[in-house]
Amino acid sequence: MTTYRILPLPGYTPTIGRLVAMLTYARDTTLAAVSGLTRGQLDHLHDDRSNTIGALLAHIAAVERGYQVVTFEDREPSASETAASTAALKLGDRGRREVRGHELQFYTDELMRTREATLAALAQHDDAWLEAPLRIAPNLNAHWAWFHVAEDEINHRGQIRWLRARLP
Amino acid sequence: MTTYRILPLPGYTPTIGRLVAMLTYARDTTLAAVSGLTRGQLDHLHDDRSNTIGALLAHIAAVERGYQVVTFEDREPSASETAASTAALKLGDRGRREVRGHELQFYTDELMRTREATLAALAQHDDAWLEAPLRIAPNLNAHWAWFHVAEDEINHRGQIRWLRARLP
Repeated sequence: MTTYRILPLPGYTPTIGRLVAMLTYARDTTLAAVSGLTRGQLDHLHDDRSNTIGALLAHIAAVERGYQVVTFEDREPSASETAASTAALKLGDRGRREVRGHELQFYTDELMRTREATLAALAQHDDAWLEAPLRIAPNLNAHWAWFHVAEDEINHRGQIRWLRARLP
Repeated sequence: MTTYRILPLPGYTPTIGRLVAMLTYARDTTLAAVSGLTRGQLDHLHDDRSNTIGALLAHIAAVERGYQVVTFEDREPSASETAASTAALKLGDRGRREVRGHELQFYTDELMRTREATLAALAQHDDAWLEAPLRIAPNLNAHWAWFHVAEDEINHRGQIRWLRARLP
């Protein structure tokens, strides 16, 4: 029987643990949604304005990397970090052109590496940090930022499921 | 400046307040995604396997009503409750056939009524309740159930955005 509970988790302060439970659940559903896809399926364009499933996976990892910088390093991404992620972050034409030709494992490895770094950093922070205004963006707190990382992922997972159901 | 923070909220125990902040943020983005749609647009079928945007909105409200029963009343939905929601819950053929012909306000009124009942009930519960196993489904807790309500909504909001961008 699979257990679905949001609870504090060992290794994290209580509210961070609950957030990690949400991030983990969201990620598990993303990985389930793309399980077994081939390179051709990951590169398939449903129509000329769609994003490929591969590009959506790259986007999910790029959004998470961006919020790592903003919340853990308290700074805007550098020009070189931004340049490296632009195609995946912005999707659209550049995403269609530049993010392709990879096997599923390319994307899942990047998701895994990114998530490992997120969890290692969250384990070093506490609940007071989580809910304080961000220094570089005081209208946000890190709790919103990390909820938003899950929320953006879930939004695109909904699109991935829709696109997958219509693969040729 | 819009403020994006997940924090405890007045009127709720702390963890429930944070959850309400997430539910509210998710709902705001759903309402923004459908703002201004006409009846014809809400009834539009992108292809013969798609759900209309209207049916997705009805689905979001029906999922929330279902989890109200499971978490606040600690019981399965009755036969008549299930029958009233089947088309919206299951989507697909019945959703396409039965959920249509309504203006946007029909759907947003139902979302608002449902959410008011959710918030009123959450205000009567506490964090210990939120994270205890559900009596009728001990592999879940209410925290997961209500996170899942937001998560399912966000998943479909992703699809709504995709469908809206392709309305004729």
